[in-house]
Parts: sequence; C-alpha cells; structure tokens
Amino acid sequence: MAKMKVWLLDSGSLVIDRAHVIWNIDPGNPVRFPVYSVLVEHPDGLFLFDSGYDLDLVNEKLPFELPEQTEKQTIPAQLELCGFKPEQVDAVINSHLHFDHVGGQKHLPNAVTWVDVDELRHAKVPESFEALGYADQGFDHPGVTYKYLEGEEMRFAEGIQLIHTPGHTVGHYSMLLTPEGRKPMFFIADVTYTAETWEMERISGFHNNPTDGVASVRKIKRIAAESGADVFFSHDIDEWNSYRHAPEFYE
Amino acid sequence: MAKMKVWLLDSGSLVIDRAHVIWNIDPGNPVRFPVYSVLVEHPDGLFLFDSGYDLDLVNEKLPFELPEQTEKQTIPAQLELCGFKPEQVDAVINSHLHFDHVGGQKHLPNAVTWVDVDELRHAKVPESFEALGYADQGFDHPGVTYKYLEGEEMRFAEGIQLIHTPGHTVGHYSMLLTPEGRKPMFFIADVTYTAETWEMERISGFHNNPTDGVASVRKIKRIAAESGADVFFSHDIDEWNSYRHAPEFYE
Repeated sequence: MAKMKVWLLDSGSLVIDRAHVIWNIDPGNPVRFPVYSVLVEHPDGLFLFDSGYDLDLVNEKLPFELPEQTEKQTIPAQLELCGFKPEQVDAVINSHLHFDHVGGQKHLPNAVTWVDVDELRHAKVPESFEALGYADQGFDHPGVTYKYLEGEEMRFAEGIQLIHTPGHTVGHYSMLLTPEGRKPMFFIADVTYTAETWEMERISGFHNNPTDGVASVRKIKRIAAESGADVFFSHDIDEWNSYRHAPEFYE
Repeated sequence: MAKMKVWLLDSGSLVIDRAHVIWNIDPGNPVRFPVYSVLVEHPDGLFLFDSGYDLDLVNEKLPFELPEQTEKQTIPAQLELCGFKPEQVDAVINSHLHFDHVGGQKHLPNAVTWVDVDELRHAKVPESFEALGYADQGFDHPGVTYKYLEGEEMRFAEGIQLIHTPGHTVGHYSMLLTPEGRKPMFFIADVTYTAETWEMERISGFHNNPTDGVASVRKIKRIAAESGADVFFSHDIDEWNSYRHAPEFYE
C-alpha cells in the first residue's frame, strides 16, 4: 500500500470487428473502442503504464481502424492536463508493445522503459501474424533505456505489483495498484478487452498463444477476487465512459 | 513409391466466415466450403485419411455452419460408390480430430484409428476455445483401437508419408502420397484451408498455436516444392471443383 494519485489519459479511439474483440465470434460487426494509459504519481516517481497510440502512425499503417484522436488526446497534452511535463515521467511500464500501447513514449525523453525481454524481442522480430500489431517501433526511440520485467508477480514499487499475463502477446504484464485509502485498482490491459469477454473468459482475436491467453484470464480473475480490486478494462467503451478521465483522478 | 488408387470422398459442405478461413481478415463474409476425405487402396490395406462430418451432429451442435449433406455424401455411401463396404476399411488416419474430420469413423467397425496421442488427449479434454471444434466424440466409438502417429515424418506404408504439422491443432498431421506412375499427392488437411491462404502463408482463425501454425505452412510449402507434389486443399470450393470426385479416382 502506498499513497498515490492515478489518472487515466485518453488517447482517443479505434475501430475493430467484434470477431477481433471476441475471437471468432460474431464477425461482421464493427466496434469503436477506447485507448488510454494510466499515470501514477507515487512517492518513488512518476510512472506511466502504456502510452496510447500515435495518430500519424495509425493513419499510415492501419487507417482501416479509423482512428479518432484530437490534439488534446495526445500524451503531452494529457500530461499537461494533469500538471506535468513530458520530461517529468520517470518510467514507462509497458503491458506489451502493440502500437496502441506505445505511441506516446517517444515524447518522454527521461523515462526508462520497463518491458518483458521476450516482448521486446518479438516486437523487433515479430511472427508474420504479429507484424501489424507491432507496427509502431516508436518505443525504440533514440536514447531509450530498457529495464526488464521479470517473474510471475513483480513488485515494481510499494503498492505497484506487475503480473505476468502472457497469451495476447508473449510477454504481456498487467498492473495491480494498491493505493492507500481506496480499493486496489487492477489494470488488466489486453488479457481480455471488455467486461463481456471477462465474463465469458474469452480472449481477443489478436493473440500469440491462446492457451496461455485463457490461462491468464483465469489468473487475473482469481487475483481480482482475492484482492477485491476494481477491474479496469482496456478496450470497452461503456466501461471507459464510467471511469474518471484526466484531469479527474483516483486517490 | 507404391501402386495405389486414390479416391476423394465427398462429405458435403459447411459455412464459416472469411475471417475464420483467413485469421482476422475480412470479417462479415460467409463462405461455403467443401468437406472431404481420402480413400487409399494400397497393397498393405484400405486406408481412409479423415472421415468427413456427421450431419446429425452438426445439426445438433453447430447448426450455424448450415450443413448441406445428402445421403450419398455419407461415408458408407461414398465407400459403396468406390466398390467397398465399411467393414473393409483397415485403418483411419486422422489429420486431427475436429468434427469435420471424424464424422464417418463410427461406421467403420474394423478400422484401427491412427492419431497423434496429444491430439487424442486434447480432443477428450479440450481448451475452452477448442470445445466446439472437438464437438463430435464419435471417433471414440465402442471397440475403437488407437495407434499413435509419431515423429516429424512417419512412414506409414510404402509411398504413404505422414508429416507432423501442428498449429491448427496440437497434433495435426498431413499426408504425402507417392503413387507409382504419377506425381506425388499432398493432402495438407487444415494446415491452411485454401489456395489463397497457402499463397499468403496465412492460417485459419481456428487454431491451437499460431506460431506453430505458420511454421507448419512454411514446412509443407518446402516439402511440396521438394517433392513436386500436387497440393490438395481441404476447404477450398474452387479447388475442390477441379478435383476428381469418387467414383472417379487417381492412380
């Protein structure tokens, strides 16, 4: 448990098919979904969990996902909303390196990048079916310093636990926050995208290893139950609309 | 090389989405596709590679795949077309145990069932996302005898090579025939479904391990090139219409 302040930084939205949200189910139904990242002000530093998507990159490489992102929905603008400059971010923790989770980190000159080492390897040398997911190599910006996430449950700082949840990608991690004075907050990133797929124990159509993926869904459900955490879904527009958005915050 | 006669036994057809045929691509476009099995009369015996689907089972468990199968498209009727009785089949070789590859074997009282041992285990105790694929347990009929496929390339009989091609399922095998007096014939089953996906090196949306799956696509393309084989696609309606159908045969 630690005293911390938590902001959700809006990155705009994208469109995929329902058969991508729920692997193989209901093809032919486009779904617009939110993209966001999580800023944590902690006694040990200012940390960012993921960093949204870069509009130019998506317009160039994945225009069919119909990006909607205003100037106010970029990482520098969102940090400013919270009273910070990009230089103040001490570390980015990457759940994984898909384009919609790394777009803002090139704007963070002083942030160490924490990521699973196999995730970094796959992002640089992807399987054919992963190439589009890893289309934004902007995480690998000049001067970047990597540190590696390790283990099943890694204590990143007091009250910040990182949990190995592979399947969606080879080195996916989720983040469990235990703030002083409120319920734990569980950011499960892309283990499963929505409240509905969480309930169904289904994974998305984008994955590296579906067997690992469904095991990770069961794992986060167990951890959520044991910790009594509020679960935050990564790509669920209804859930997103029920969350506080920066500059509002949780503490 | 061995003298053999080869028939393709028609099992009718089913419907899935194009995003199932080509993982994640073009959702919302239904595709009707053929299902068939391969009968081989060989000096060592009468062998059947896969056995189509069972209409009642599909109507009960997967009616949304809109099965079309006439009485003449059942395994007993197809065998009769070729001049055989079900009792005469000595062995079924299963590429894998999905419902559209095992439907006829309950009609074959004397056939030994050859299958990968991990495939058999997964078919009986599937992952959640595999349960529908393994919906037909009729392969496990009373009195069945299993023998296990093993190794990267297993010589089943003279001119019948079975090739380990996992990914679509955990224990998937393909069959390379080298008949005397004609080009080799390569039955790749569900490694990749169509001539188009073969060309694109893409796998289907139904899979156990996509990394293994794309490696298997590359493997069969290498073997096809080295052997000069004609490749037979499992679920491609245009290709199917260009093949000889029982009672016509290849020799």
